[in-house]
Amino acid sequence: MPRVLLTGYEPFSDAPVNPSWDAIRLLLQQCQIDAEVVTRRLPVVFGSGGRRLLEHVAMHTPDVVIAVGVAEGRTAVTPELVAINYRSARIPDNRGRKPMDAPVVADGQTAYFSTLPVREIVDALAAEGIPAEISLSAGAFVCNDTFYQLQRALSGLDVASGFIHVPATAHMQRGDSVPVLPLEQIARALEIAVNVTLAAKARTIAP
Amino acid sequence: MPRVLLTGYEPFSDAPVNPSWDAIRLLLQQCQIDAEVVTRRLPVVFGSGGRRLLEHVAMHTPDVVIAVGVAEGRTAVTPELVAINYRSARIPDNRGRKPMDAPVVADGQTAYFSTLPVREIVDALAAEGIPAEISLSAGAFVCNDTFYQLQRALSGLDVASGFIHVPATAHMQRGDSVPVLPLEQIARALEIAVNVTLAAKARTIAP
Amino acid sequence: MPRVLLTGYEPFSDAPVNPSWDAIRLLLQQCQIDAEVVTRRLPVVFGSGGRRLLEHVAMHTPDVVIAVGVAEGRTAVTPELVAINYRSARIPDNRGRKPMDAPVVADGQTAYFSTLPVREIVDALAAEGIPAEISLSAGAFVCNDTFYQLQRALSGLDVASGFIHVPATAHMQRGDSVPVLPLEQIARALEIAVNVTLAAKARTIAP
Amino acid sequence: MPRVLLTGYEPFSDAPVNPSWDAIRLLLQQCQIDAEVVTRRLPVVFGSGGRRLLEHVAMHTPDVVIAVGVAEGRTAVTPELVAINYRSARIPDNRGRKPMDAPVVADGQTAYFSTLPVREIVDALAAEGIPAEISLSAGAFVCNDTFYQLQRALSGLDVASGFIHVPATAHMQRGDSVPVLPLEQIARALEIAVNVTLAAKARTIAP
Repeated sequence: MPRVLLTGYEPFSDAPVNPSWDAIRLLLQQCQIDAEVVTRRLPVVFGSGGRRLLEHVAMHTPDVVIAVGVAEGRTAVTPELVAINYRSARIPDNRGRKPMDAPVVADGQTAYFSTLPVREIVDALAAEGIPAEISLSAGAFVCNDTFYQLQRALSGLDVASGFIHVPATAHMQRGDSVPVLPLEQIARALEIAVNVTLAAKARTIAP
Repeated sequence: MPRVLLTGYEPFSDAPVNPSWDAIRLLLQQCQIDAEVVTRRLPVVFGSGGRRLLEHVAMHTPDVVIAVGVAEGRTAVTPELVAINYRSARIPDNRGRKPMDAPVVADGQTAYFSTLPVREIVDALAAEGIPAEISLSAGAFVCNDTFYQLQRALSGLDVASGFIHVPATAHMQRGDSVPVLPLEQIARALEIAVNVTLAAKARTIAP
Repeated sequence: MPRVLLTGYEPFSDAPVNPSWDAIRLLLQQCQIDAEVVTRRLPVVFGSGGRRLLEHVAMHTPDVVIAVGVAEGRTAVTPELVAINYRSARIPDNRGRKPMDAPVVADGQTAYFSTLPVREIVDALAAEGIPAEISLSAGAFVCNDTFYQLQRALSGLDVASGFIHVPATAHMQRGDSVPVLPLEQIARALEIAVNVTLAAKARTIAP
Repeated sequence: MPRVLLTGYEPFSDAPVNPSWDAIRLLLQQCQIDAEVVTRRLPVVFGSGGRRLLEHVAMHTPDVVIAVGVAEGRTAVTPELVAINYRSARIPDNRGRKPMDAPVVADGQTAYFSTLPVREIVDALAAEGIPAEISLSAGAFVCNDTFYQLQRALSGLDVASGFIHVPATAHMQRGDSVPVLPLEQIARALEIAVNVTLAAKARTIAP
């Protein structure tokens, strides 16, 4: 039975909740995934978020890793295409750090692509009426930082890994001009993403 | 038992569906409303949309009338505050008409306020995690046109009437930069709006 | 020689400047207007903004009155179509007041239309490559409050009056996702608006 | 005397003009740049846009190369940080091609960073009141395609090269919800970008 590691983040920047983590918890309660699912919550901290994720990877040796974060302002569930070796923050992370124009890893490769089947995920979400789109940038805050560390560590290995940004929810209380989706729909989107990835992986390694 | 008239619109402008009508149909299937609910679909046509609505009002003599339309680009369910005596279209209506800078009713009053409890509706929606906001403009297309005719006809009468704009749904297939809500959440929002209005009306007329 | 009263506002909400006033000052330095132009700065205060404006109107008996305000987030210069009898603030005005769901004038008329030639103004701006659009809502903050008082006081009189919202400028330092126009272009837009209004007025009263 | 190659694009997607090219022409008429400036217009065609640019590079051996494109919807002048090895089009290019999920260069490196001083450029623009921001994604259309080919070809060489996206102008006639800047301001922004890059380059190679 394959093993899946799903991560969300703790709240940050005055929001009372972080739907990336709440959706994963909801998914566990109501999901239909033919795999062992491990879920972990990561700190919104440059460096540490990714290091913690890699510790969980080392401990659980998953076949699939999907890190999830919230992107306020986005209207769709967005699998990220590429992680870049760049940090630059407009707001402090949860330890008060605000790096500017710095690399994630000194002398690291410029960028890594996701190894999730991002197009298939987007198509499967759209087929179920969930707004979805491939994103070309995971930003320069902790999400990209975590994503870059993940893709770098698993580069060349037989693990499907990547990052998915989800829209805000009304529970974040960010005002009415921020697009939102219900948590139930975000959880369902992540369930679909996991299942599409597992199916793609099964096809790849079928004898 | 009070009577409620709910209207949505037919599709327009190349969208395959109109969630204003689909949400009302869904609401009928799953709603809990202590009232007789009449639902009708209106044409997206200047003049006719409102005339048709007023015929339904005349026939059913409802206590509450809520006309519902879709506003692509909005992120929240938005009860409209005010209808203005103005028509101006960027796209043709479903009969190909595109009025510009014209009145809804020649020599009509400049504007009418909604007689729905718009603030209470917004508060009740927010309490349930549904994004909601009072809107200050119903636009200058068929929605405002219908809304103006409705408020003018019922002005001074003991009927709570108004207009609610809802966000697009993914089924409208408008591309991924248009904010959407699931149809289920829109239907639930309309159910809440009806119940809040009925409760407010019951308070007002209680002996 | 006709007389024109132009008003802008003082800064508010932590912005260091208010382009509505700065544009009017710039316009005075470089304008070509065949009229006596009086300019005044109004407080961003519910009630007082409009009262002050009406004092200036009483003192100068202008033929044209254009009140100007900034609308952060707008991409175009937007002559307002209609002022409504409604106050509701998300942020406090410059005296710390934050009214909610209140009328501008108790028992006042629901709304007044602008008496500026808003379509002609928009067409003239577009012809010169300045983004412009008729706006259907002046909001529910101090701008609409001032605008409503102005239109109510001048209703039925032979004065062309109204309100124009302008986009933010880079000098407001609101971050890079707020659309901006250069102050020079805003000043030029107001000059055009005044001249179009004077020409329309001259046509109307020609024998 | 250093040599600078500046490129813009031909119009595309029904817009009558392309401000990326018009701004460069305007810059030539009014600029103050202590360098020999070569300007060329590129086709909006996958593959060809970049090949043409590289031919101009080969012919003129510039010290600085800045490719400029328009990004409708952006509010600021945005030097691009990174070019990615990915093509995916929502609209056809000017030869009717619409690649999806394809690489720019088969087996090419995932991404290349700009070698322009993007932070210095952004700071210099902001100091002059021009809205500016580092962009983390040049998209997946012809602009990124050209940018990727450019950075790949010049990788490791002593040429400062990169891509700058500029907002739409009113002359593109895209409707009033698209943020615009005047062409004069875009031309001024490019002049600043060139001068900042030349100054940075002079510092780097000073003995």
